[in-house]
Amino acid sequence: MSKKLIGVDLGGTTIKFAILTEQGDVQQKWSLKTNILDEGQHIVPDIVESINHHIDLYQMKREQFIGIGMGTPGTVDLEKGTVEGAFNLNWKALQPVKEKIEAGTGLPFALDNDANVAALGERWKGAGNNEDEVAFITLGTGVGGGLITNGELIHGINGAGGEVGHMNVEPNGYLCTCGNHGCLEQYTSATGIVHLAQDAAEEYVGDSKLKAMIDDGQEITSKIVFDLAQKEDDFLANQVVDKVGYYLGLACANISDILNPQYVVIGGGVSAAGDFLLDRVKESFMRFAFATVRNSTKLKLAQLGNDAGVIGAASLATRFTK
Amino acid sequence: MSKKLIGVDLGGTTIKFAILTEQGDVQQKWSLKTNILDEGQHIVPDIVESINHHIDLYQMKREQFIGIGMGTPGTVDLEKGTVEGAFNLNWKALQPVKEKIEAGTGLPFALDNDANVAALGERWKGAGNNEDEVAFITLGTGVGGGLITNGELIHGINGAGGEVGHMNVEPNGYLCTCGNHGCLEQYTSATGIVHLAQDAAEEYVGDSKLKAMIDDGQEITSKIVFDLAQKEDDFLANQVVDKVGYYLGLACANISDILNPQYVVIGGGVSAAGDFLLDRVKESFMRFAFATVRNSTKLKLAQLGNDAGVIGAASLATRFTK
Repeated sequence: MSKKLIGVDLGGTTIKFAILTEQGDVQQKWSLKTNILDEGQHIVPDIVESINHHIDLYQMKREQFIGIGMGTPGTVDLEKGTVEGAFNLNWKALQPVKEKIEAGTGLPFALDNDANVAALGERWKGAGNNEDEVAFITLGTGVGGGLITNGELIHGINGAGGEVGHMNVEPNGYLCTCGNHGCLEQYTSATGIVHLAQDAAEEYVGDSKLKAMIDDGQEITSKIVFDLAQKEDDFLANQVVDKVGYYLGLACANISDILNPQYVVIGGGVSAAGDFLLDRVKESFMRFAFATVRNSTKLKLAQLGNDAGVIGAASLATRFTK
Repeated sequence: MSKKLIGVDLGGTTIKFAILTEQGDVQQKWSLKTNILDEGQHIVPDIVESINHHIDLYQMKREQFIGIGMGTPGTVDLEKGTVEGAFNLNWKALQPVKEKIEAGTGLPFALDNDANVAALGERWKGAGNNEDEVAFITLGTGVGGGLITNGELIHGINGAGGEVGHMNVEPNGYLCTCGNHGCLEQYTSATGIVHLAQDAAEEYVGDSKLKAMIDDGQEITSKIVFDLAQKEDDFLANQVVDKVGYYLGLACANISDILNPQYVVIGGGVSAAGDFLLDRVKESFMRFAFATVRNSTKLKLAQLGNDAGVIGAASLATRFTK
């Protein structure tokens, strides 16, 4: 019987789990609410207990598993298997995650940060077609990235490789949470898109449902902006989508001039806007990318949705087969 | 007796050669004028003859050599060892360089493009300190790059990885030879700097020797701009150097947000301006780079000058030891 992998996707609201074959096919999935109380000290014990419980539940044996891989927020020390600065988990101190999970489950454990793990998932079983050159950008509350070249993730010396959300796309632009001005995240994350919409509404005097909603004090989301643009052909909403496409295309061009990947895969909640957004990103990418890059690198939407994390996490555990 | 490497740096005006120890120490150097006549068909035979001649001249034997590595302009097929599109060599057709040099010298041969090879040289024996994470930018007539992550060069799928000269730094900026507007090359190459100076002179009405020279129709070089700025404190020349530093720092920040390298090494003829330029690049880098990157990635000047090419080229041949 072939061996299995366990993938864990640790997030601020839920912890997702999956049991996969060595080939990356998901066989079982479950999830748990993340308990961030008491400085997040319940999280790791909850993960251990849930894995042990499910191995028993499915009447499986430890020997059937190659190992566990996990994606986590925060800064990861790959060698030591520790995490720090994961604020949405309420983890204030350094967490010896690998040590505790290996002790609690009896299985080898590897981890990486959540964007990198999602990139590995999309590369392995999603839009990345298992290529050795894949760039992944995730557009959610923030903007993250996982970049793969020569078949390996780019971590850089301090784990900050792939910080595409903080590439500069507008030198005197919006103030970012990182302290700089004009980071990509401020223009293409869910919150950045709302910011763009609010500023656009303030300057606009024509007829627009988006403007009316904002002026009325209604809560706007990036989804509302895309829906108004696509379904109601709202002029102002379309202006905002144009800007999002422009900035994301510019960033994709600069990333691709550096990496010349096979694919730039765009995922995360904002990418639910689909081709309606992607077409504008491509337009801007074609304008800014170097000819050789423009003719070889392709922009694609992510394919795995929420499963990218557990699948990519599980792929970290394939190293234990060797 | 330890074995030797041969490094060849093929350029449009000269071909540089060196014999190095396995440790990368240069023991012999010589060079040849590049004969680009007759569609560059003399180039490869000249290289073969020169290598054979020098092996005899130094009374060495083929068995003492591990192999030959070469850096070349144009687009390189690493597997096949061919080159195409090297216009400054007058090579119009695809060149089977590896096949011919191996046949002519009896030694194994590897090649890569010139910027990549210079990056390998600076990484191995120069400013890169032999680290696994090094970005190299060369500022000459054009702007090129060689990027090393996880200890390997980034080639991308079409050999266009590391095309940092065509990263966009000014969306509606100067028209580039590549057809796009606002590429880094147009602001930080020797020719780009002259362009900046000419435009600055046109707008400026104050007292400036740089402006006087330009208005007088004298030929300006990037060296003249730097000299006037540094030695004569010319106001306009300093404005130009500020702009060069601004754009290069912005590009270094975006590269580093992607790669988080140990060092960004700045080389090429323009880098002769030294710390006078580097200090301004750093200022702009600190403004635009993500905090984690800003605090870990360091900007440095290249150290090997013209030898980077032959040293890096020779390092390609170390693969034949295995």
